[in-house]
Amino acid sequence: MTAGMDHSRARAGRTVISVDAMGGDEGPATVVAGISLSAKKNPDIGFILHGPKEVLEPLVAKRSNLAGRCEIRHAADVVEMEDKPSHVLRNGRETSMWSALESVRNGEATVCVSCGNTGALMLLSVMRLRKLGGIYRPAIAVMWPSRNPQGFNIMLDGGADIRADAKDLMQYALMGTSYARNGFGLERPRVGLLNVGTEEHKGRAELKEAYDLISANARHADFEFVGFVEGRDLPGTVCDVIVTDGFTGNVALKTGEGIAQLISQLLREAFRYSPLSQLASVLAYTSLRRLKKRIDPRRANGGVFLGLNGTVVKSHGSADPTGVSSAVKLAYELAQKGFSEKLAARVASANMLDQDATAETRNNGETE
Amino acid sequence: MTAGMDHSRARAGRTVISVDAMGGDEGPATVVAGISLSAKKNPDIGFILHGPKEVLEPLVAKRSNLAGRCEIRHAADVVEMEDKPSHVLRNGRETSMWSALESVRNGEATVCVSCGNTGALMLLSVMRLRKLGGIYRPAIAVMWPSRNPQGFNIMLDGGADIRADAKDLMQYALMGTSYARNGFGLERPRVGLLNVGTEEHKGRAELKEAYDLISANARHADFEFVGFVEGRDLPGTVCDVIVTDGFTGNVALKTGEGIAQLISQLLREAFRYSPLSQLASVLAYTSLRRLKKRIDPRRANGGVFLGLNGTVVKSHGSADPTGVSSAVKLAYELAQKGFSEKLAARVASANMLDQDATAETRNNGETE
Repeated sequence: MTAGMDHSRARAGRTVISVDAMGGDEGPATVVAGISLSAKKNPDIGFILHGPKEVLEPLVAKRSNLAGRCEIRHAADVVEMEDKPSHVLRNGRETSMWSALESVRNGEATVCVSCGNTGALMLLSVMRLRKLGGIYRPAIAVMWPSRNPQGFNIMLDGGADIRADAKDLMQYALMGTSYARNGFGLERPRVGLLNVGTEEHKGRAELKEAYDLISANARHADFEFVGFVEGRDLPGTVCDVIVTDGFTGNVALKTGEGIAQLISQLLREAFRYSPLSQLASVLAYTSLRRLKKRIDPRRANGGVFLGLNGTVVKSHGSADPTGVSSAVKLAYELAQKGFSEKLAARVASANMLDQDATAETRNNGETE
Repeated sequence: MTAGMDHSRARAGRTVISVDAMGGDEGPATVVAGISLSAKKNPDIGFILHGPKEVLEPLVAKRSNLAGRCEIRHAADVVEMEDKPSHVLRNGRETSMWSALESVRNGEATVCVSCGNTGALMLLSVMRLRKLGGIYRPAIAVMWPSRNPQGFNIMLDGGADIRADAKDLMQYALMGTSYARNGFGLERPRVGLLNVGTEEHKGRAELKEAYDLISANARHADFEFVGFVEGRDLPGTVCDVIVTDGFTGNVALKTGEGIAQLISQLLREAFRYSPLSQLASVLAYTSLRRLKKRIDPRRANGGVFLGLNGTVVKSHGSADPTGVSSAVKLAYELAQKGFSEKLAARVASANMLDQDATAETRNNGETE
């Protein structure tokens, strides 16, 4: 009996996650290892795994955790990291990425997970799943480790797009707070708008417009707007959701990763330095391991595309099995909560409120 | 005998640094403590210290390291962090910041150090010191801890301005490499242009133009252009100098600080967690102290304004005495090397080469 014939069992009573096995730097074996980890931790998950059947069947067969849990859906082609998104849109019907999105489009699965080419994934997601009604610009929301009680902050846009005007940033605030409520149970998330400097006369002029729009929405919607924040607040405690354009967000994200990696390397070297410090590392092993888990970007790497019909979780291209598994975990949690529907409702009501609110602001000549 | 009467001794045979004592979050006592540290470490430094005489004289008198080394120059006013730069330009003649820049303008000192309001400092510096001939847009160059042999990477613009077009970015590359040669002795620095993604079809269109200009210059000038780099390369090893616009650069800088701070806090907590880990921290004390020194942003905080007649070192507003002292150290090293003159010569020759090179590029229809 092949894994392909188990699909009725894979889906019976379980939450189904559609997974693109291809396109990550580490290849399909890593993805399969990751979903196997997830299957082991969570009996409620079933998978539809997309990619070349002849490649995937042997990999899945080796994983006892996936027996009866994973349907393989054949797709011969792969989207490469260097492929242009427009090219993939025209020519990518046979790719595993396209196939993985189709499962969400046709309702077989509620969420899709992919490690592949972000630009192609975003364009395909937008074209095949379509934007939720009322959304101007979908965004990738990413998680930052932080000292807030929930342990993470949300930042968007982390790189779906390059630019964002004031209305886009206002919607990012709405989408981000909806995600914060549904993903972290934060009833009244605090939102910050990323800028340089903390006085209002510094920074880009278009951010002032965004500031006013977000303020106007906060008054009526269920979030608190803390105003402009700086880069150091991304892992900080002054807010839970940080809003910025995709270029800035992606640079910040990659910078944070680079610094964390540098410190990890230096820490390892510091502990190899002398017999005393080596002894110290042994004694501190448990504490250091806990710390590493706390700040490890691989555990927080499940970026989520917000603003589409259906949820898409983008894992890092370089994700290892732990990273893939955490992306799957996030996908599962969002599927449980009917997240897309709630987000759509939130944006729709806010658009109406926003028109009222900005009219009111203009009439009163005031800003928050 | 007051410090004021010692100025001939303060300057005799020494390199003179002009220091703004006011405007930092921690106040003038911190600045005086910092320059006292520097005076102790380096017998060759003399200071002109600017601020209200009645405030500074008692502070300086308490520091035996500064006896005969520090002339106090009275200035009654202070530039506050919230002052608008344009306001300071119109009304700031009596401020310590203005006075500190005057000492450079009139040749009493070669470099100026200030902890105050960056926007005001930059505007005053540009207006009072003037841009070097041929420079379009001065920039702040900041240092990132890195695993390169020199221990640091240079990034510019760290926040002097908000936007930069292709020609500005090209000049940032020239200024940054001049600083890398004179500050770090790197004969052939590697330059990267900050972008999102590593494939050329991602990222902002204006960066492609900058890519071509920098490539054209690299062929003739003494640096290597590695092409687009990402945020994670800021503390990395693929290049020595990273070029970006001031908004992006400042967000990256503050983000890096926030992450480093988060990790430091978590590390401290990890080592307090249990008696075993507390013991571990004692054993590892020396190694951890070395590590902290390595990544401590306070030691790398001397941002330098490049592109002016005279060198201005901007310390963090929140700098403590260690931070002030490291800014002074940087100022001293640049003063030693005749840095401004070398940079001016480099930019002038590159502008001419650039006109030839881009003409050549257009004729050949090629890019690097």
